[in-house]
Amino acid sequence: MIQGDLKVTAPIRWAMVGGGRGSQIGYSHRCAALRDNSFQLVAGAFDIDPERGREFGESLRVAPERCYPDYQTLFAEEARREDGIQAVSIATPNSTHFAICKAALEAGLHVVCEKPLCFSVDEAEELRALAQERRRIVGVTYGYAGHQLIRQAREMIANGDLGEIRMIHMQFAHGFHSEAVEQANPGTRWRVDPRYAGPSYVLGDLATHPYYIAEMMLPELRIKRLLCSRQSFVASRAPLEDNAYVLMEYEGGAMGHLWTSAVNAGSMHGQKVRVIGSRASVEWWDEHPNQLRYEVQGEPVRILERGMDYLYPQAREDDRIGAGHPEGLFEAWSNLYYRFALAMEAMDRGDTTAVEALGIPDIDAGVEGVRWVENCVRSADAGAVWVDYA
Amino acid sequence: MIQGDLKVTAPIRWAMVGGGRGSQIGYSHRCAALRDNSFQLVAGAFDIDPERGREFGESLRVAPERCYPDYQTLFAEEARREDGIQAVSIATPNSTHFAICKAALEAGLHVVCEKPLCFSVDEAEELRALAQERRRIVGVTYGYAGHQLIRQAREMIANGDLGEIRMIHMQFAHGFHSEAVEQANPGTRWRVDPRYAGPSYVLGDLATHPYYIAEMMLPELRIKRLLCSRQSFVASRAPLEDNAYVLMEYEGGAMGHLWTSAVNAGSMHGQKVRVIGSRASVEWWDEHPNQLRYEVQGEPVRILERGMDYLYPQAREDDRIGAGHPEGLFEAWSNLYYRFALAMEAMDRGDTTAVEALGIPDIDAGVEGVRWVENCVRSADAGAVWVDYA
Amino acid sequence: MIQGDLKVTAPIRWAMVGGGRGSQIGYSHRCAALRDNSFQLVAGAFDIDPERGREFGESLRVAPERCYPDYQTLFAEEARREDGIQAVSIATPNSTHFAICKAALEAGLHVVCEKPLCFSVDEAEELRALAQERRRIVGVTYGYAGHQLIRQAREMIANGDLGEIRMIHMQFAHGFHSEAVEQANPGTRWRVDPRYAGPSYVLGDLATHPYYIAEMMLPELRIKRLLCSRQSFVASRAPLEDNAYVLMEYEGGAMGHLWTSAVNAGSMHGQKVRVIGSRASVEWWDEHPNQLRYEVQGEPVRILERGMDYLYPQAREDDRIGAGHPEGLFEAWSNLYYRFALAMEAMDRGDTTAVEALGIPDIDAGVEGVRWVENCVRSADAGAVWVDYA
Amino acid sequence: MIQGDLKVTAPIRWAMVGGGRGSQIGYSHRCAALRDNSFQLVAGAFDIDPERGREFGESLRVAPERCYPDYQTLFAEEARREDGIQAVSIATPNSTHFAICKAALEAGLHVVCEKPLCFSVDEAEELRALAQERRRIVGVTYGYAGHQLIRQAREMIANGDLGEIRMIHMQFAHGFHSEAVEQANPGTRWRVDPRYAGPSYVLGDLATHPYYIAEMMLPELRIKRLLCSRQSFVASRAPLEDNAYVLMEYEGGAMGHLWTSAVNAGSMHGQKVRVIGSRASVEWWDEHPNQLRYEVQGEPVRILERGMDYLYPQAREDDRIGAGHPEGLFEAWSNLYYRFALAMEAMDRGDTTAVEALGIPDIDAGVEGVRWVENCVRSADAGAVWVDYA
Repeated sequence: MIQGDLKVTAPIRWAMVGGGRGSQIGYSHRCAALRDNSFQLVAGAFDIDPERGREFGESLRVAPERCYPDYQTLFAEEARREDGIQAVSIATPNSTHFAICKAALEAGLHVVCEKPLCFSVDEAEELRALAQERRRIVGVTYGYAGHQLIRQAREMIANGDLGEIRMIHMQFAHGFHSEAVEQANPGTRWRVDPRYAGPSYVLGDLATHPYYIAEMMLPELRIKRLLCSRQSFVASRAPLEDNAYVLMEYEGGAMGHLWTSAVNAGSMHGQKVRVIGSRASVEWWDEHPNQLRYEVQGEPVRILERGMDYLYPQAREDDRIGAGHPEGLFEAWSNLYYRFALAMEAMDRGDTTAVEALGIPDIDAGVEGVRWVENCVRSADAGAVWVDYA
Repeated sequence: MIQGDLKVTAPIRWAMVGGGRGSQIGYSHRCAALRDNSFQLVAGAFDIDPERGREFGESLRVAPERCYPDYQTLFAEEARREDGIQAVSIATPNSTHFAICKAALEAGLHVVCEKPLCFSVDEAEELRALAQERRRIVGVTYGYAGHQLIRQAREMIANGDLGEIRMIHMQFAHGFHSEAVEQANPGTRWRVDPRYAGPSYVLGDLATHPYYIAEMMLPELRIKRLLCSRQSFVASRAPLEDNAYVLMEYEGGAMGHLWTSAVNAGSMHGQKVRVIGSRASVEWWDEHPNQLRYEVQGEPVRILERGMDYLYPQAREDDRIGAGHPEGLFEAWSNLYYRFALAMEAMDRGDTTAVEALGIPDIDAGVEGVRWVENCVRSADAGAVWVDYA
Repeated sequence: MIQGDLKVTAPIRWAMVGGGRGSQIGYSHRCAALRDNSFQLVAGAFDIDPERGREFGESLRVAPERCYPDYQTLFAEEARREDGIQAVSIATPNSTHFAICKAALEAGLHVVCEKPLCFSVDEAEELRALAQERRRIVGVTYGYAGHQLIRQAREMIANGDLGEIRMIHMQFAHGFHSEAVEQANPGTRWRVDPRYAGPSYVLGDLATHPYYIAEMMLPELRIKRLLCSRQSFVASRAPLEDNAYVLMEYEGGAMGHLWTSAVNAGSMHGQKVRVIGSRASVEWWDEHPNQLRYEVQGEPVRILERGMDYLYPQAREDDRIGAGHPEGLFEAWSNLYYRFALAMEAMDRGDTTAVEALGIPDIDAGVEGVRWVENCVRSADAGAVWVDYA
Repeated sequence: MIQGDLKVTAPIRWAMVGGGRGSQIGYSHRCAALRDNSFQLVAGAFDIDPERGREFGESLRVAPERCYPDYQTLFAEEARREDGIQAVSIATPNSTHFAICKAALEAGLHVVCEKPLCFSVDEAEELRALAQERRRIVGVTYGYAGHQLIRQAREMIANGDLGEIRMIHMQFAHGFHSEAVEQANPGTRWRVDPRYAGPSYVLGDLATHPYYIAEMMLPELRIKRLLCSRQSFVASRAPLEDNAYVLMEYEGGAMGHLWTSAVNAGSMHGQKVRVIGSRASVEWWDEHPNQLRYEVQGEPVRILERGMDYLYPQAREDDRIGAGHPEGLFEAWSNLYYRFALAMEAMDRGDTTAVEALGIPDIDAGVEGVRWVENCVRSADAGAVWVDYA
C-alpha cells in the first residue's frame, strides 16, 4: 500500500504538545506520524520544563525557535507564521487534554489527541461542537484501530460472514499493577489519582481501547443499558478502580461483555475482542496481532494471517510488509496516522464524504469513549446497577 | 498411582439406571467405574424400553435376570439378594434424578448421580438429609474434578502460591447449539424443555461444571451476592437460556465471573477456569487439559505439564500414564470414580474423616450446584439484578 | 462408535507376559484390551518373580492357578485347557520379544507385542513366516496409530486433499534423558544397554512410533535410500545413540526427514508428523492430540478437531466421547486393541480381506520397523552415509 | 532505549541503490534507516529506469539533482560534493551486489547490502579485503538479528543458562512457492534463475537468515563438515532448489540441522531457531517474535516476553515500546540499522573495539553466508555427501 509513497499532497506541518524525553507514547506518535512523509515535525511544546523541551526538540531537528515553553505560546506564535503548523498531537496527562484540545481547535488546528479527550460528556460535546464549527479533524489514538486484521473483522461483519451478531466480548486486562507500583513510579502515579486521571483508572485508560475496536468493527451498535462493577484490589487506589466488569445490552438484543484490569497477575496486555454471530465468530488478540481466528460453527477453526490475499481488499490496503513477516503496534499506529493525514487534507478541501470513508477514530469516537466511561462510573457508583445509557 | 492395582478391598457391586445403548454419558460412567476394578457391573435398568435394556445389559455381560425394567424393580429385587448391589449410578434425564436418587438412598445404596441432583434447593436438602441419615455417599459427576491439574491448582492455592485470591473466572461456552439443532435431535430436545431440564439450560447443564471446579480449587469461598443475565438467542428456547453471564461478589472481597453459552459459534467446549491472586494466576482449559498455565507477575509464564515431578504430590497421585503422553476426559472420570469407591468403602466402615480427605464432589457439591442455579435464575428473572445468595 | 457395545462375537481369552506390578506399559495394555469387552484377561506370566506375579494376577482377578511362573509354562498349560487362552500380549524387555513371540505363535496364539519385535530382520522374517503359516495375527503396539486424527490424515492423503506428496517429516524428541538418569533408574538402564535394548536406543524405542504413523498415513511409500547420523550426547550411552537424524529418499522423489532424541532438553514427548503435499500439509502432535492442522497453501490454516462431523467417516468410527472433550493416549490404544480383536476374529474365520481392511500395525509393520532401524544403524555406523534400503 | 533520541552525533548522509517504487525491501530499508534520525536520505539511484527513479526520489524529498540514473554516477557525483553521501544501501537483484558493493567501497563509502553479498567465496573475500583496507563497514541485512529476543538468547547461551550446547536446529520453510508462481510473477522469477540468483535459491535466499541468527547466538561455533540434500519439487526450477536439508557437525561435537523450503505448503514463513543444551533449550519463531520459549529440563516451560525486566540488559537495550505491545520485523530492522550507524561512526573515528562490541552482521557474516551456501551446494551436487567445511 503505502510503502513510503507520498499519497498526501504535501506533508502536514505538525507539532506535539508533550511527549518529550523519556515518553514512550511520544515516541509512538512520532514513529507513526513521520513514517509515511505525511507529517513533518516542525514545532512543539514538548516538556513542562522549557529548557529540556527545547533540547529535546533540537535533537529531533526542530528549529530551536519553534520549541515553545507551553502550548499557549506554541499556538499563538505558530499562528503568526506563514509556514505555521496545521496540526498538533497532544500527549500530556489526561487532565490537560480538554484545555489543550480546545485551544488547538480555537487556533484552527487539526488535532490528534490521546484518549480520553476529557473527563465529562459535557466537555466532550463542547469539543465536538467546536470541531464541527471550525471543520477540523480531531483524531483519537486508539492505536490498534489501525491494524489490518481489525479492518478485516469489520468487513467480515459488514458482509454477513458471521450471521446476525449476538455477543461482543472485550478485554484489556494486564497484571503489571498487581502491587502498588505507583508508589515508586511517578509515571504511573497520576493514573490512579482522580485529579489527573479523571473519574476512572482502567475503564478509561485500558477499556476504551477494546471498546473502540468493537465500535470500529460494529459501527451500528447502540447500547441500551449497562451495568458496571468496579474494584480497587490495591486499596490505596480507591475510589479509582484497578479492575472492572461491564455488561451491556444493545439495541436489538445483542449482549456485550467487557473485563478490564491492571491486576490480572502474570498476564501481558490481554487485549482481546471476540464477536460472536449466529453463524461464526472472530477473535483478535493484540499479543499475537498477525492472526485472526475465524470460527464457523461446524467447520474447522481458521487462522487468518495478516497480509494474505484472501483478506478483504479494505484490510489489505493497510499492509506494509507482506504476509509471513510480523507487524506490530507501530504499523497499526502508522496506518492510523496516515489516515489522519488523509482526513485532514480531505477536510481542508471540504470533502467530508472522503473523511467518513476513512473509518478513523474521530471526535465522535472521542465523545463516545468519555460517555461510556461516564455511564460505567455512574453504574458502579450506584452499586453496580443497570443504568440506561445516556 | 492406580494402574490396575486394586486398592479397594473388593469391587463394589454396582448397577446403572439409564445410560443404555447409544448413551454417551452411560459409556463414560462405565469406562470410569470399571477401569480400576473398584466397581463391578452386576445389574441395571438401562433403558426405558425393558427389552432393549435387557439386551444391552447382556451385551455388557450382566446376567439377564438382573436387567430390570425400571429402577423401582431394580432396587426392590436387588435388596432381596445376598449379593445385591451396593451402589447405583443415575444417568437419566434431569427431571428424574430426584426421585431415583431418593429411592436409591432409601434402599440403602450409595449413589453416583449426574448433575443436577434435582431442580430445587428444597429437594436437594431433602436428599442431603436422607444421605446423612443413611450414611450413604452421593457422588456427583463433575468429571473434570478428577483431573490431576485441577488438584494441582487446588494445592497451589492452598499453599499460597498465588497470594491472596482476588478473582475467579469461569467459562463453559460452546457453539454447538448456535442453531435450533434440537428440532432435529431428540437427544438434545429435552435439554431446552423446562419440563425435563428444570429451570435452566446452560446454567445447569454447563456452568455448574466450571463452578464446581472453582469450588474444588477454592473450598473456602462463599458467595455474598450475585447477578445473572441470561438470554435465549435461539428464541424458541425461551424461557430457558442458551447464554448467560454471572457476576459474583464473595465474602472477603474477591470477585467471580462466569460465562456460559451453547451459542458461542465456532468454539469447542471452551471450559476454562482462571484464578487470579495478588501474586500470580493459574489457568486451566479442558481442551488442552494436560497443561496448566502458571503466571507469576513479573516472571515468564510457566506451562505446567501433567505427570511431571514438579507437581504437588496430591496431584501426582492421580497420574495414570506419566508425563508426555496426553490424558483426557476418561482419566479424569476414572479418578473420580476411583475416589467414589474409596469413599463408599470408608463410609461403610464409618470413617468419615477418610471420606472428607478424598475431596470428591459429594452431596454438598450437589446441593450447592442446585442452589447456585436457583440463585442465578432468581436474579435473571428479576431483570438481571443483584440478589443476596440464599 | 464402540461405546461399550460388544462388536466381537465373544471376548477373546487373553493373557499377558510381563507388565506386572509397577509396569506402566502393562497398565496401558490392560486398559486398552479390557475396555470394550473384546478381551478377557484369564491368565498371565506377569513377573519374573513368580510369587509377585501371582499376587499381581490375583489382584486383577485372574485365577491363581492361571498365574504362571514363566511364559513357557503359560503356553504349555493353557494349551491343555479347553478354555485356554487365544491371544497373548508381550510387555517384557526388548531382548526377550523374539523368543516369546515365536513360542506364542508356535503355540497357535494370536500375539500383541511391544515394539521392537526383535533385533534383526532375519528374526523378524522368521516370525512373519511363522505367523503366515499358522495364520495368526501379530499386532504391534504403535499406540497412536489408533488415534482418530491419524486415520483422518490417512484418508485425506488417500483422497488427494494434499495433492502429490513431497515431504514427510517425523519427530519423537523428548528431553527426559538429558542427563544419565539411567544410573539411578534401573527401569531406564536396560534401554541404553545393547544386550537388552538391541542395536539402538532412540531409533528403535522412539523413532519407530512416528515412522509407523507415517507408514499408516502413506501405505504406498517405499524408501529408496537413507542416511542416518546418530550421537551419544551422554557419552556413557555409546554405542547406543540418544539423538539421531535420518534423511530418506523415497521411490518417486518424495523426501523424508526424521529427528529423534532423548536429550531434547525441556521438551515433553515432541512426537509430531507433518506431511507436505503440492497443495496442502497436515500436521499432528501427540501432546495436543485432539487437533490436526490442515494447511492449504493460500488459505487460512484450519484446525480440525477430533469428533467433528466434518471428518471422514473412517476417522469418526474411532470416536468415543464426541467433540469438545479431549481424548488421550488410552483411547488410541483402546481403538488399536479393539481392531486387534476384530482382526483376530476375522483371521480365525479365515477372512483375510477383513483383516487387511482394518489397517492395523501388524507383522508387516513389525518387520518394517526392525528393517528400518537396521538400515539406520548400518548407515550411521558407516559414518552417516547413504545406504540403499535393504 | 532509543525512542527518537539521537545517539549518533549527526545523521549519516545516506543513499540507496535500488529499492524504488513497489519494492518491499526498499521500503524496509528506509523505514529502518530513517526511524532514529541516524541516517538521512539525501541521494539515490533508485530504479533501473532513471526517470521513474527520479520521480520516486522526489516523492521521498530527495533533491532531484541527487537522483541519479545509475550507481556509477551516484558514487562519482556524490564524491565531488562536500556534503556527499557517507553510506549507501544496496537493494538490487543478487547478481549485482558484488559489483555495486565493490564500487561503493572503492568510493570510500560504508555499505549496507542485502544478502547474499555475492556468489562465491572468492568474491566475498575480495570485498572483505577491500573493506578492511578502506576501513569501511559492510552491514548485511539479516533483519531479525536486530530482534531483542535473539539477543536475549545469545546472552543466555553465553551465560551458560543452557549448559553445554548440543544441537542447533534452524528452519526457514514457507509454502508460498508450492506452485510455479514465478511464471506469472517477474518479481519472483529472477530468484529461481541462476543467472540472477546465483548457485542456489532457498539456501541463499532463506536459509542464510536462520543460519546467521544461530551464528549470532553462538559466535564461537565452527562447522567441521556438512551434508546437504536439495530438491526442486517444482521441476522447472532445477538446478536451483526449492527445498533443502543440511546436517552439520560442529567442532566439539555439537550437531546442526537446517531445513529450508519454499514449498512447505500452507505454512507462513516458519523461521525458527532452537538451541538445545545439556540443561535447557531456547526456541524462537519469527511469526510470534515477542515470545521466546525457555525450556529447562525437569521444569515447566517458560515463555519469555519481549520488553520484560527479567531479560538480560543487553536484550532490553533494543526495546522500543515496552512489554505487552507487540513489536515486529520493522523494529528488528530499525535496531539493526541503528547499530550500523553506531558502527559507521565508530569506524570513522577508528574505534574498532566499539564496532566489535555492537554485534552486527558485518562483512564477516556476509562472507560466511556465501561460504556456507557454497559448501551446501558442493555437497548437494556431489550427491548429498559429507564435505569438509572449506
